[in-house]
Amino acid sequence: MRSVRFLLGLLLLTASAAISAQNSPAAAPYTPEYSKDGRLQAPKNYREWIYLSSGLGMNYNAKVSGMDEPMFDNVFVNPEAYRSFLETGTWPDKTVMVLEVRGSESKGSINKSGHYQSTERMGFEVHIKDSAHFPSKWAFVTFDSDQGDLVPPAATCYSCHAEHAAVDTTFVQFYPTLLPIAKAKGTFSAAYLKELSAPAK
Amino acid sequence: MRSVRFLLGLLLLTASAAISAQNSPAAAPYTPEYSKDGRLQAPKNYREWIYLSSGLGMNYNAKVSGMDEPMFDNVFVNPEAYRSFLETGTWPDKTVMVLEVRGSESKGSINKSGHYQSTERMGFEVHIKDSAHFPSKWAFVTFDSDQGDLVPPAATCYSCHAEHAAVDTTFVQFYPTLLPIAKAKGTFSAAYLKELSAPAK
Repeated sequence: MRSVRFLLGLLLLTASAAISAQNSPAAAPYTPEYSKDGRLQAPKNYREWIYLSSGLGMNYNAKVSGMDEPMFDNVFVNPEAYRSFLETGTWPDKTVMVLEVRGSESKGSINKSGHYQSTERMGFEVHIKDSAHFPSKWAFVTFDSDQGDLVPPAATCYSCHAEHAAVDTTFVQFYPTLLPIAKAKGTFSAAYLKELSAPAK
Repeated sequence: MRSVRFLLGLLLLTASAAISAQNSPAAAPYTPEYSKDGRLQAPKNYREWIYLSSGLGMNYNAKVSGMDEPMFDNVFVNPEAYRSFLETGTWPDKTVMVLEVRGSESKGSINKSGHYQSTERMGFEVHIKDSAHFPSKWAFVTFDSDQGDLVPPAATCYSCHAEHAAVDTTFVQFYPTLLPIAKAKGTFSAAYLKELSAPAK
């Protein structure tokens, strides 16, 4: 009987260790959270998510003149969605991509040219796939605070992503480690396949 | 007796579930691995580690002329070292930082200006702190294959990092989310404090 109690104790200890390992900050699966009035809550630890890529001064409009200080954009995705993409080449429900915008600096410390990222976060946006919450599955959400502001479905970001994005309304053509996976899995959008087959201008 | 066997079985099952949770790609702690002749093995899944920052065309030498196609550098660190840094403001033993160099492109898909990262990885280097393996604790290792090549201790990268890096021979001044932590924890190097107090040129 004593050995049974000992084993039971050991079992509980091991089970609680297993739960604790799963609940550690790195391993906790992300689930989108909304306020009572339906506003997405800012994901807190997206800097510990999977990094997809960065750009500097990227612009989709040729008419916009160059900025004196171009900005960096860094893109992160929740780890569960990333692992699903590695297997399938596309995004599962509850995918959350964070676009973080940072200022750039050129001359600082020993750096003499080029650009590095500054400590000031200049912007923070989310592209989320949550079919239970958004009628059109995907939505853009901007943040001035911890409470998200839904970008209205008529905004051009939706139509631009629908018309040009390589995979499931996301710009996988700009994510260097994911592009070959989407190609191998055959998950390019019809719009992107059309762009690829068009003669170079 | 049957209940003891049942409990033992359950215990093994729970223990193996715990081990399996810890060994999942996201949660597995990274430990540096070396070949029999002491060469560091390339960390395989560094793209799932913690992202620190990116630069574009960064250069420490004013005399080098600008490149036609500047390169991006992305820096990642193993999650265990990152979490330790958040608590202490400096790096623990077994810290591994990966510098990934990627080409840049400007006009592609709908992008008209600025730069985004290309699928071609142009370089891959490691800065590792492993006191059991390197007499001076930190070492630089380059990779042309999965087997690392130790950069000789007399190379200028060692002296430059020692003389200019903000924290423990690492350029935390270029990692926007870590710099405020090091400042708060008071872990800046003497060399960096001197640089901060010098009059601007």
